[in-house]
Amino acid sequence: MPARYIARLAYFVLLIGLVAGITAPAAGQDVDGAAPAAAADGPNVRLAIHGGAGTIRPENMTDAQEAAYRAALEEALRAGYEVLRNGGSATDAVIAAIVPMEDSPLFNAGHGSVFTAEETVEMDASIMEGARRNAGAVAGVMRTKNPIRLARLVMDESPHVMLAREGAEAFAEAYDLEFRDNTYFHTERRLEALRNAQSDASTTDADTSPAYLGTVGAVALDANGTLAAATSTGGMTNKKFGRIGDSPIIGAGTYADNRSCAVSSTGHGEYFIRAAIAYDVCAMVRYTGLSLAEAANAVIHGTLTEMGATGGLIAMDPQGRVAMPFNTPGMYRGVINADGSVQIDIFRD
Amino acid sequence: MPARYIARLAYFVLLIGLVAGITAPAAGQDVDGAAPAAAADGPNVRLAIHGGAGTIRPENMTDAQEAAYRAALEEALRAGYEVLRNGGSATDAVIAAIVPMEDSPLFNAGHGSVFTAEETVEMDASIMEGARRNAGAVAGVMRTKNPIRLARLVMDESPHVMLAREGAEAFAEAYDLEFRDNTYFHTERRLEALRNAQSDASTTDADTSPAYLGTVGAVALDANGTLAAATSTGGMTNKKFGRIGDSPIIGAGTYADNRSCAVSSTGHGEYFIRAAIAYDVCAMVRYTGLSLAEAANAVIHGTLTEMGATGGLIAMDPQGRVAMPFNTPGMYRGVINADGSVQIDIFRD
Repeated sequence: MPARYIARLAYFVLLIGLVAGITAPAAGQDVDGAAPAAAADGPNVRLAIHGGAGTIRPENMTDAQEAAYRAALEEALRAGYEVLRNGGSATDAVIAAIVPMEDSPLFNAGHGSVFTAEETVEMDASIMEGARRNAGAVAGVMRTKNPIRLARLVMDESPHVMLAREGAEAFAEAYDLEFRDNTYFHTERRLEALRNAQSDASTTDADTSPAYLGTVGAVALDANGTLAAATSTGGMTNKKFGRIGDSPIIGAGTYADNRSCAVSSTGHGEYFIRAAIAYDVCAMVRYTGLSLAEAANAVIHGTLTEMGATGGLIAMDPQGRVAMPFNTPGMYRGVINADGSVQIDIFRD
Repeated sequence: MPARYIARLAYFVLLIGLVAGITAPAAGQDVDGAAPAAAADGPNVRLAIHGGAGTIRPENMTDAQEAAYRAALEEALRAGYEVLRNGGSATDAVIAAIVPMEDSPLFNAGHGSVFTAEETVEMDASIMEGARRNAGAVAGVMRTKNPIRLARLVMDESPHVMLAREGAEAFAEAYDLEFRDNTYFHTERRLEALRNAQSDASTTDADTSPAYLGTVGAVALDANGTLAAATSTGGMTNKKFGRIGDSPIIGAGTYADNRSCAVSSTGHGEYFIRAAIAYDVCAMVRYTGLSLAEAANAVIHGTLTEMGATGGLIAMDPQGRVAMPFNTPGMYRGVINADGSVQIDIFRD
């Protein structure tokens, strides 16, 4: 072994120590390092979702609200699971899981998206599959009922990865997608959140503070061992100037690579872009040999927290292990296992 | 040392071997692993630029054309160097280097940008500084004479990282920037390239094949030891549907982190996004302890080439070492050292 490799080994030992130091305080925080429960006779598939991270606290939610979120998360998990159980791809599964969340008014994506400063809804979405590392993304779409379906068409049917605004929807018109007038996406609750943001009034609504809460995402492992990740959002309440957040940015909001992991993130998007959060989890897993949970914790409780930013992510590795770190009071999240068993959580344990 | 760390060390030794295997065939290809030449009495500053990678061959260029490119590259290098020599920041230096390339008709950025399918020019740019890892980007702007200046305003003056299209230019209007009618960006040569692309005619023009050649970029190290990177482009000839390439994507086209390196890339943008090329160089340097040249070579001659894609990048580490790998016949590129000495290359050596 050449001397320079020995020097690098020493460097690596140092690095491991540093990263372990970062991850240590976060140990036990919503990380599942165990092997997933397998179906007795089925394939080893798994799917995880999030519905955004933020200042979600028990005291800000009624029992009825909590029940509604739990029901919506379970519906999404079961929709994705149906695909996986029937031998479908991870790509089809993450879309099947995200569509009902886009159709629900509870989440900041599709129908329940937040308003821009101009009182319109402009949505972003992205998807990536881990076998060929193919990807698709759309930014600022205004008429597509399910932006995640359009992101998938960009991935499968265009030579491009990312299409923006009117152009993305002009591309969409050649395909069998559902379109809606922008008013379909308008909800009273989000209009109120815009008014609050514009008047700078404080609010105790768990879903409007901070303004970016409610992005949805999914990661899945299919029976072929392929990973996929997808993310969909309405972005930030009161956003201006055609702001693009991390959700449609491959490497920031979404990443999938069968050699390392699949990630969907949610939080203060500008920081997620600057730190390339989704790709960074996969890079750490691939280059340092850290476990998925260690890498995901290092990124959220190390990198993101040190930058003074908040958010979380869901991640899955090729063995189906799941990590769901967040540095906010809560994150809507859930996992469905190969045997169909479900775990849904909202608050910090 | 716990047993699991020893297992990871073994994994890392394996990884090093794999990466070394990838980088070995590329050794000697346009990589400067040496310490930069320092000024006798000045600070250790350095700046590198590129003007795009592609099918640039001596037989396709007249002597006059080559001289024009060399002169334009030297002008850009000296403009950036003036900033560094006077104690200016790496951020100011990369902008000073890119502005003359945006103003030149030779490069696919600013004035010389390629046409979209609609015979308009839509430009993308991004910038990042390595001390605080702050960043700014614009996509699809049509009236800003120097898109890199607007990206810098997004970084410094907005709470956002990325603004798109009309919104980006609405934001710009509050600042002292130069605007031009879209026809300012139209050049006869690029219109001809569009006609060729639309008729699918083959062309021997070194600057129109492939359609994305000519993106410009810069990386710099200032006297404070801070790195910065910036990239500017007109994108792909005949692009449609609001296509966004890698140039305005932090992590794909541009990245800077004082802990690892600064990178500006150029090539078939969709692949650069999918592989998070710019961030990946920095991640390899930071997590594996590979040298800058080894990491940059692994990304271009390993990852990118294995995906079947073409392009290149320029990268600089905190010691001022430079790597400029590309897997195309040529890349417009240059370096200026602390003593003011310049090296400019176009073809593969």
